[in-house]
Amino acid sequence: MSNPFFNNYGPFKLKDILKTLNLDLDSFDENIEITDIKDLFSALKSEITFFHSKKYKDIALNTKASFCITSEFLKNDLPKRCTPLIVDNVLFATSKVTEKFYPDSINDNFDESVIDMDHSKYKNKVKYGKNVLVGKNVSIGSNCLIGHNSIIEKNVSLGDNCSIGSNTIIRNSQIGKNVKILDNCVIGKHGFGFFPNQNVNFRYPHIGSVIIEDNCEIGCGSTIDRGSMSNTVIGKNTFLDNQIHIAHNVKVGSNVIIAGQVGIAGSSILGNNVKIGGQAGISGHLKIGNNVEIAGGSGVIKDIPDNCKVMGYPAKNIREFLKENK
Amino acid sequence: MSNPFFNNYGPFKLKDILKTLNLDLDSFDENIEITDIKDLFSALKSEITFFHSKKYKDIALNTKASFCITSEFLKNDLPKRCTPLIVDNVLFATSKVTEKFYPDSINDNFDESVIDMDHSKYKNKVKYGKNVLVGKNVSIGSNCLIGHNSIIEKNVSLGDNCSIGSNTIIRNSQIGKNVKILDNCVIGKHGFGFFPNQNVNFRYPHIGSVIIEDNCEIGCGSTIDRGSMSNTVIGKNTFLDNQIHIAHNVKVGSNVIIAGQVGIAGSSILGNNVKIGGQAGISGHLKIGNNVEIAGGSGVIKDIPDNCKVMGYPAKNIREFLKENK
Amino acid sequence: MSNPFFNNYGPFKLKDILKTLNLDLDSFDENIEITDIKDLFSALKSEITFFHSKKYKDIALNTKASFCITSEFLKNDLPKRCTPLIVDNVLFATSKVTEKFYPDSINDNFDESVIDMDHSKYKNKVKYGKNVLVGKNVSIGSNCLIGHNSIIEKNVSLGDNCSIGSNTIIRNSQIGKNVKILDNCVIGKHGFGFFPNQNVNFRYPHIGSVIIEDNCEIGCGSTIDRGSMSNTVIGKNTFLDNQIHIAHNVKVGSNVIIAGQVGIAGSSILGNNVKIGGQAGISGHLKIGNNVEIAGGSGVIKDIPDNCKVMGYPAKNIREFLKENK
Repeated sequence: MSNPFFNNYGPFKLKDILKTLNLDLDSFDENIEITDIKDLFSALKSEITFFHSKKYKDIALNTKASFCITSEFLKNDLPKRCTPLIVDNVLFATSKVTEKFYPDSINDNFDESVIDMDHSKYKNKVKYGKNVLVGKNVSIGSNCLIGHNSIIEKNVSLGDNCSIGSNTIIRNSQIGKNVKILDNCVIGKHGFGFFPNQNVNFRYPHIGSVIIEDNCEIGCGSTIDRGSMSNTVIGKNTFLDNQIHIAHNVKVGSNVIIAGQVGIAGSSILGNNVKIGGQAGISGHLKIGNNVEIAGGSGVIKDIPDNCKVMGYPAKNIREFLKENK
Repeated sequence: MSNPFFNNYGPFKLKDILKTLNLDLDSFDENIEITDIKDLFSALKSEITFFHSKKYKDIALNTKASFCITSEFLKNDLPKRCTPLIVDNVLFATSKVTEKFYPDSINDNFDESVIDMDHSKYKNKVKYGKNVLVGKNVSIGSNCLIGHNSIIEKNVSLGDNCSIGSNTIIRNSQIGKNVKILDNCVIGKHGFGFFPNQNVNFRYPHIGSVIIEDNCEIGCGSTIDRGSMSNTVIGKNTFLDNQIHIAHNVKVGSNVIIAGQVGIAGSSILGNNVKIGGQAGISGHLKIGNNVEIAGGSGVIKDIPDNCKVMGYPAKNIREFLKENK
Repeated sequence: MSNPFFNNYGPFKLKDILKTLNLDLDSFDENIEITDIKDLFSALKSEITFFHSKKYKDIALNTKASFCITSEFLKNDLPKRCTPLIVDNVLFATSKVTEKFYPDSINDNFDESVIDMDHSKYKNKVKYGKNVLVGKNVSIGSNCLIGHNSIIEKNVSLGDNCSIGSNTIIRNSQIGKNVKILDNCVIGKHGFGFFPNQNVNFRYPHIGSVIIEDNCEIGCGSTIDRGSMSNTVIGKNTFLDNQIHIAHNVKVGSNVIIAGQVGIAGSSILGNNVKIGGQAGISGHLKIGNNVEIAGGSGVIKDIPDNCKVMGYPAKNIREFLKENK
């Protein structure tokens, strides 16, 4: 599938990509064309991928990509059909190549393509407030409402029966049916991902989207960042209260309830029917099982298996926590 | 008093209400008219009320309502003049009946009644910025200022000498005199109250308002949700810093000081002269006494009597906490 | 240097200032003119300063100011050239005099000087969205972008290559080059500083600015308050994630990384290369050294020396914390 939000400036010749990576690979036909960059699982034969952690060994073994940015240490876990491109810092190199394919994914400058709803094809199809702006190629289902001063940026899609509040900005997002996004939200900006560097940090490209599935509600003042190489996903019938922050690449399951001011750091995955109390925080790259309950104010710093109830900082079994803190 | 913000679609005949509740009550004149739904304390003879917890036993005993949605377990605490309507889930049933009377209180779709201030009767009475929108029936006192892009939705009232910032939305609220509400706030949206339900959660009606008394200040990016069956109240001369979240039904006393990023969960009650440090959280349904001081970052999970100073998570006596954490 | 944002209503005769302070100082020429109020370090001979804590004794000894608001207890630490004006509450008195010089610094009413960008001199110089407002005397560098509905208030300066998001408000701020301020931010409002007072709190004047140095990024929904008597400063190449609150007078060093929902209370000073995890909080008036790492969710309540890693609430050495919380 082609990226719905960012223009792919490829294909590029292998030699151009090697140049970006400061690599020399004499033994190859440097005129081979590379069409895209994808993760290990999704990449096709004509594409390049990346492999930066032993954790993904099993997926690496089966990748269809012909080229893979990786390290000396990991290269032997790739299949023979996939040529390793050995670099010092896999993520940094991946970032460089991704930027080459998707230069527009680095910056979140305002969408210059927007026009006033009054002058758009949605004029008679959507109920909308004053000063509503809509970008190019936006798709809006039937029976939608869009509040005052809200901005639906280019390529965004909204399903049927959505209600968007006022002063809300939606970009790089695919919104399902019956979704409510309340006032003052920012959905779909790039994540807080970059390589720290004295004087000028180097921003990581964010070519993923935000996917919000059917029947969700997103409270006022919330921010949901889009993914870097994958998507940020909010599952069906999940309700978020006000002032919540969901970082890039997070996947939230279905029927999840998240109370006010909760923050979920990058790349964490939450199961279904999870309940999270106000102001709780979840660190990055964690796996929270199904039916987990996290008490308000907790700080979760490790994985939580299905059906557990936790509390505290660091969060532990709730009964244990309450016994210790009587 | 009739509800200032939501249209009462009643009266309804008793038989229609019984139908909503899937109840049969042969022995009654099903043509009796019920005019409104209110809490135990406020309900009048022609109205229906609800009683869901032993905690309210004393109030139940004195209710003037002729009908009360309650449980088998609680019905005997009602006076003889009040007929119990027995249901399995009192709050869910109450919600159904409330929705019948006030169908507009479920959704917070944008206010379609607004017009640009330039075309309103306030044009020469209020000092206002660009693109300010004002709904039907709004009442604005003298010497008020309203910043750019702000929206004062229908039926809202502002007292004299109020200063509203830019990009702020006020709905379903009654604001006193000399109140400052800074930029990017959302005041008066419905609370985060609903009955979780696989596939489609069922929203609880919110027919209450937000009341902000004289001389208050509300910091930037704050959200104050309106009440469900009662009001959310911010007492006189109470100051809120930035990014604060006050949930539905919360009552904050007078002369209270709340620092940045604090969150107060639903239905908690704070006394006067309370001081709360930054990022502290207060769980729902708690009672915080007068002159209480809560240190920044604390998580309060039980009632606090007058004059106490607390710290920690769960919050305890501050001296004890500091001794244990030297 | 004269204040770039607030009009100095001085000079005032000494007798007028004494009157503001309810003081009598017969022995002096009450017609001496006082031109401004500044801190101990910056004040010139013709200006008045204030001295309220032993901590500033060394600076007091060298102040050039001819008059100083101070207490009986501190007056002997002033040089002979500086006449002490003895009051009961130094900060309150200072606040009164500051308000006299800078009456516009008390309130953050919306900027009435703004006009639509379409009608400004920036029309062809800046790339901007719909409904962008710009105040008097604003200075904007080359290659800047300003998103929809954003407001750049009077006297603000933006360096070259800045990108401002949508729905963002900037006031009383000096922004360097290559700075990104994302959507829904409020930069430069007054801090949460006031003297609590039954019935009507007394607001402290905020005559400082917000300074954001080159190459910074400020995430969506963040608030940075301007200083009271000094500036709030964000150092070069510092990146802030979403929903961060930086209170008045805070100084953040260079190359600092602050994750989502962090709050920093008033007057704290952070060194360079500091890293702060999500939802951490830092109390007021603290000094955080260079290269410090603060784990997500931590609550810092005392100074942290250079190169330390801390975690917990109250934050302590991270290894100690993790050992105790296994």
